[in-house]
Amino acid sequence: MPDSLNQAQYDTVYNFFSLVIAAQLFASIFMLVSLNRVLPRYRQAMTVAAVVCGIAAYHYFRIFDSFKTAFVTDAVGGRGDYVQVAGASFNEGYRYVDWLLTVPLLLLELIAVLALARRVQTRLLARLIPASALMIALGYPGEISGDDGLRGLFGVLSTIPFVYILYVLFVELTRSLDRQPASVRKTISQLRLLLLLTWGVYPIAYFLPMLGLDGADAWVGKQLGYSIADILAKALYGLIIYRIARMKSFADDDAFATRELSVDEVREVTAGAPPRNGAPVPKRVRGRDTD
Amino acid sequence: MPDSLNQAQYDTVYNFFSLVIAAQLFASIFMLVSLNRVLPRYRQAMTVAAVVCGIAAYHYFRIFDSFKTAFVTDAVGGRGDYVQVAGASFNEGYRYVDWLLTVPLLLLELIAVLALARRVQTRLLARLIPASALMIALGYPGEISGDDGLRGLFGVLSTIPFVYILYVLFVELTRSLDRQPASVRKTISQLRLLLLLTWGVYPIAYFLPMLGLDGADAWVGKQLGYSIADILAKALYGLIIYRIARMKSFADDDAFATRELSVDEVREVTAGAPPRNGAPVPKRVRGRDTD
Repeated sequence: MPDSLNQAQYDTVYNFFSLVIAAQLFASIFMLVSLNRVLPRYRQAMTVAAVVCGIAAYHYFRIFDSFKTAFVTDAVGGRGDYVQVAGASFNEGYRYVDWLLTVPLLLLELIAVLALARRVQTRLLARLIPASALMIALGYPGEISGDDGLRGLFGVLSTIPFVYILYVLFVELTRSLDRQPASVRKTISQLRLLLLLTWGVYPIAYFLPMLGLDGADAWVGKQLGYSIADILAKALYGLIIYRIARMKSFADDDAFATRELSVDEVREVTAGAPPRNGAPVPKRVRGRDTD
Repeated sequence: MPDSLNQAQYDTVYNFFSLVIAAQLFASIFMLVSLNRVLPRYRQAMTVAAVVCGIAAYHYFRIFDSFKTAFVTDAVGGRGDYVQVAGASFNEGYRYVDWLLTVPLLLLELIAVLALARRVQTRLLARLIPASALMIALGYPGEISGDDGLRGLFGVLSTIPFVYILYVLFVELTRSLDRQPASVRKTISQLRLLLLLTWGVYPIAYFLPMLGLDGADAWVGKQLGYSIADILAKALYGLIIYRIARMKSFADDDAFATRELSVDEVREVTAGAPPRNGAPVPKRVRGRDTD
């Protein structure tokens, strides 16, 4: 962590932290407000997605606060710089508290939106959730250690469960994908890719200090990397979950699609078939949508 | 309570207190948002569970604040340590205020989700609630006392209602369990076990200072123990209550299960029987679900 930041560096970190708060908080509110716009069976996934973004927003309020406490204007020096308060320190390890809660939940929302058979869900989650908690827990001792050897050791250890998670998502999960409607199969594959790409940012940021890149610019770059990765991995990811839940709701229930979409949109969703506007809708199905 | 903490100790307590706030606050929000996802008859239990987590989150904001006020950076010493502010002290006794409210409510939500006959509920609660209030009230004089004799005396007195609560939960309640659907009996037993294990942490933390373990590490360990126990005993406990309420809702009402679950899931919940999609749903049951 640098001893001082210039005005541009300070402002950049400040702006990005605030951007993360805005993105997560309003992604969360958007998803909560939109709960009724998917069928009840997909609302578990949506609620978890909203909770993940809410937790991330809360934590960025703390991170923002920790940043503002750690650096103060160097008024005496008159250089317009921000220097680290003696004894105070930006709480980098705090991110792990966030990940410990949110990473297992990100996997849970992915599995929930697929609405697989319960025993398949249970089997996948029994592998993914402990592996993800282990991945975070093993990274923490390396992050708070000042020693490059320990950082490297725990970094490698933490990579083992990470690779295992990728194996489950890209090999085991693939077998279940043929039960998904054709309209969402591609989006689900993209979602896994987003997960792989964004999660890949964290180990890169983790290993940066070992490359000797720990000046002020490198530190600012690391904060930017974490911030962008957090927005993509939680807010954008949640919005894609919402899109999948919408598409699956339309595929499951024509009446729901007719109610939610314009005539032209319905025609597309039902692949050219005319919308069943005039057809009688079974009472049970109609009752389903009105809560 | 220690006179000073080093940076790692301070950060650890800071991170865990904040973890508790995030866990309780978002467990509470999750349960409130998910109220409609159980039948109305189980919403009392869910609401109480959400309120318990909300109260705990509020109290941890206070505990967090008390911690930040009690320890300040030792900037002059320049050791990066945190020393206790002269005259200020971390308000440990504050936890009892939380427990006095939340512990009786935890027992109430357990009884409520079972949806027993009203006279059975009344009889159980008339025993459990006064016993739990007595348990907390008797622990308090020992906690704030600096004297080991008084601490021991009130510790033992407080254990008597604790044992009585366990008796009611594990002997008296067992007779009512055969009225529960088979699908949830195991989960309810696990819930009682969770309650026993997590509540067991509190007396251990209570008696720690009597073993002479009152250095900085022991104090940090005690705060961690309380934090983890509070997360398990309130947030995880509430989520298990939600799970029981969901399973009971599906067992009570096929139409509700059909609406809330995917086709694959319904097939499992109804134990292989095809979902009664076409069967007429009694009007009374349908009306019940839509409020």
